[in-house]
Amino acid sequence: MDIPPFRWLDPPEGPAIELLDQTRLPAAEVVLTCRDVPTLVDAIGRLAVRGAPMLGLAGAYGVALAAHLARSADDVAAAADVISRTRPTAVNLGWGARRALAAYLRAWSDSQPYPERIAASAALAEARAIEAQDATASRAIAQHGLTLVPPHARILTHCNTGALVSAGEGTAFAVILAAHRAGRLARLWVDETRPLLQGARLTTYEARRAGLPYALLADCAAASLMAAGQVDLVLIGADRIAADGSVANKVGSYSLAVLARHHRVPFVVAAPVSTIDFAAIGAAAMVVEHRAGQEVTGYAGTTVAAEGSPAYNPAFDVTPPSLVSALITECGIARPVDAGNLRVLRDGYDLPGDGNKIGADPVATASVER
Amino acid sequence: MDIPPFRWLDPPEGPAIELLDQTRLPAAEVVLTCRDVPTLVDAIGRLAVRGAPMLGLAGAYGVALAAHLARSADDVAAAADVISRTRPTAVNLGWGARRALAAYLRAWSDSQPYPERIAASAALAEARAIEAQDATASRAIAQHGLTLVPPHARILTHCNTGALVSAGEGTAFAVILAAHRAGRLARLWVDETRPLLQGARLTTYEARRAGLPYALLADCAAASLMAAGQVDLVLIGADRIAADGSVANKVGSYSLAVLARHHRVPFVVAAPVSTIDFAAIGAAAMVVEHRAGQEVTGYAGTTVAAEGSPAYNPAFDVTPPSLVSALITECGIARPVDAGNLRVLRDGYDLPGDGNKIGADPVATASVER
Repeated sequence: MDIPPFRWLDPPEGPAIELLDQTRLPAAEVVLTCRDVPTLVDAIGRLAVRGAPMLGLAGAYGVALAAHLARSADDVAAAADVISRTRPTAVNLGWGARRALAAYLRAWSDSQPYPERIAASAALAEARAIEAQDATASRAIAQHGLTLVPPHARILTHCNTGALVSAGEGTAFAVILAAHRAGRLARLWVDETRPLLQGARLTTYEARRAGLPYALLADCAAASLMAAGQVDLVLIGADRIAADGSVANKVGSYSLAVLARHHRVPFVVAAPVSTIDFAAIGAAAMVVEHRAGQEVTGYAGTTVAAEGSPAYNPAFDVTPPSLVSALITECGIARPVDAGNLRVLRDGYDLPGDGNKIGADPVATASVER
Repeated sequence: MDIPPFRWLDPPEGPAIELLDQTRLPAAEVVLTCRDVPTLVDAIGRLAVRGAPMLGLAGAYGVALAAHLARSADDVAAAADVISRTRPTAVNLGWGARRALAAYLRAWSDSQPYPERIAASAALAEARAIEAQDATASRAIAQHGLTLVPPHARILTHCNTGALVSAGEGTAFAVILAAHRAGRLARLWVDETRPLLQGARLTTYEARRAGLPYALLADCAAASLMAAGQVDLVLIGADRIAADGSVANKVGSYSLAVLARHHRVPFVVAAPVSTIDFAAIGAAAMVVEHRAGQEVTGYAGTTVAAEGSPAYNPAFDVTPPSLVSALITECGIARPVDAGNLRVLRDGYDLPGDGNKIGADPVATASVER
C-alpha cells in the first residue's frame, strides 16, 4: 500500500488514528483522521475500518487514544466498552480493546505520581505490541497455509482478507499471496461479497496491485464454477470462531461451505488465534450482527428495490466445524477443526515468551492434526 | 400492472411493440416503442424485455412485426433468425419466433394473390394465440403449484417470474400469488439476484404492488435463512429445461438447489411446457450465455471494482434433475423430474384441440407422478 491502511499519530500531529477509508476504495484513497473515540467508533460502525485483525488494532489503538485524551481511568474503561460493542460479532475488536485497557489499568495502579501519562503510554505500547504480533502472525499464517495449496491452484475467496485488514499481508489473502509467489496460483476467484461488496471493491484492489491472475464473480455464480471443476480450494478469513470451531464470517461464507462440501472442494479458514473466542461454546453463543436494510435494497448508495422494501441483512453467517476442512492460524493448522485441536492452538499461543512458535520448520513444529 | 408490460400496436399507431422497459423499473415506468426489429433485438439483448414466457411473446410478435414491414418472406425468416439468436439460453424466444414464422410461411404458400398481407396477419394471429395460451398456462401453473405449498409457507424465490415475464401472472410468481390468496403465504423471501438485480428491482416491485409479506436478501444470505429453518420451499422459474429435466435458469438457481438439498428444503421449478427443449438431451446440450463483465464489476453504470478487473459472468446456471423436487407446468406436475415424466407432459401438451388439459380437477387430471 502507498497509504498505510492504519496509522497511529504521536503528538504534535496526534494523538490520533489515521485510517484509509475502506468505504471509498477503490475509487478514492481517502485518509480519515480520528482525533477522538466517537469519530473512530463511527468509522468502525460504517466499516471505514474493518476485518478481524485490523479491528484488533482499532480496538487497542482506540483505547490508547482514549487514554491520551481521558481525564480518568473510568473514561478509558467506558471508551473501551463503547468501542467493543460497536460490532457485536467481530471478536478481535473487543479483544484488542481489552488488552490495551488491561495494560492501561495495570500501569495506572502501579504508577505514582503521574499514572495517567504512564498508563496512556502502556496502552499505546500494548497496541503497538498487538500490531507487531499481527504482522508476525500474518507471515506465519502464510507459511502454514501454503502447505495446503496444491500446484496450479484455483482459489475462491469471499470478502476481503489482505493488507487492508491486517498489520501484515492479512489472513487468507496472505496465503494467496504466498501461493502466487511460490508459482502455485493459477487463478483467484473473487466473490463480490454483497451487500457491501468488499470483494468487488477491496479484494480486486489488492489483487490488481499484487498482479494476481484474478476474476470477479457474483456470489451466486460460485456454485456453477465449482460444478465446472474450476475451484480447487475455498479460502476465507473469520470474524469469530467459537470454541467448537464454528466459524462466524461475512455472510455468504456458510453458503460457500455447503457448496464446497457438495462439490468435494476443501473449505479452509485462515485466522489468527485471537479470532477464536473460547468463551463462546458454539454457534449459538455467537451474536450475528444485523445491519440496515438499505445495504441490501441499494447498491453502492443507489436505491434499486421498490420503495419501502424490507430486507433481511445479517452481516455474518456461521459455518459448523463439520464443514471446515482446516483452520490455518499463526500457531499451526487445526485439522479436523474441533474443540480439542483449538485448545492445542490456544495453549501454544498462551505460552509466555513463546510468541508465535514458528521456527525453522514451522509446519512440522506447529501443525495440529489428529 | 397499470402499464401493460408488453403490447402490440395495430396501425395507425403501429405496427409496433410497446414494452415496459424492465431495466428502468422500479424507479421509472418507461414505455419503449419498437417500430422495427433492430430496436426490439436491442431491447431483448439488454434485458428491457426478459423472462421465459415473455420472450416467447417477444419472439412471436417480433416476427409479426417483421412480417408487417418486410418486402419478402426471406426478410421475415432472416428476422426470425436474428431474434432467436439474441439470447442463446432462453428457449422460448426461438420457440415463439419459430411458431410465428411457421404460421407466416404456411399462409404465404397457401395465399394468392396477396400473400404478404395474409401471411403477416397469420404471424400476428399466431403471436396472439401464444399470448392467450400463456395467460391460460399461467393460471394452470398457479392451480397446480398451489398443491405443493404448505400452510404458513415461507417461500424463497430467485430472479423475477411474475406478470412482467408473462401474459398472465407469471410462473413461480403466479404460484406465490395463488398461495397468498389462499392464505398460505407467511413470507416471500426475495433473492436480489445479482448481477442485474431482477429480484431487488422487479420482484419487490411486483410483491409490493400485490401486498405480499416479503423481504429482500443478498443472494449469499439464503443459506443462513435455510439453516435457521426459515425457508419451507424454494420456488423458481426456468429459461430452458433439457429433455432429462436439467434446468437452466438465472445464475444462482443451481446454488439454491444445492443449498436446498443440504437443508432438506423442496426445490421446485415452475415453467410452461414450451420451456422444455426436447432437442437438448441434457445439461451439456444447453448453451449458457455469458454476458459483459461490467454487469459484475459495477451496476447501472457505476463501477465499483478496481479498474480493469476481469469478471466471470454467466447469465445462467444448470441444475441437474436430481436436485429438482418437482416441475410445475400448465399440464401438471412432474415428480420426479425425469425424461419419462417430461415426455408425458409433452404428449399431453401436443394433443390437438386439447389446449391446456386443465379440467374441473386439474391436479387429478394432469398430475404426472411415478
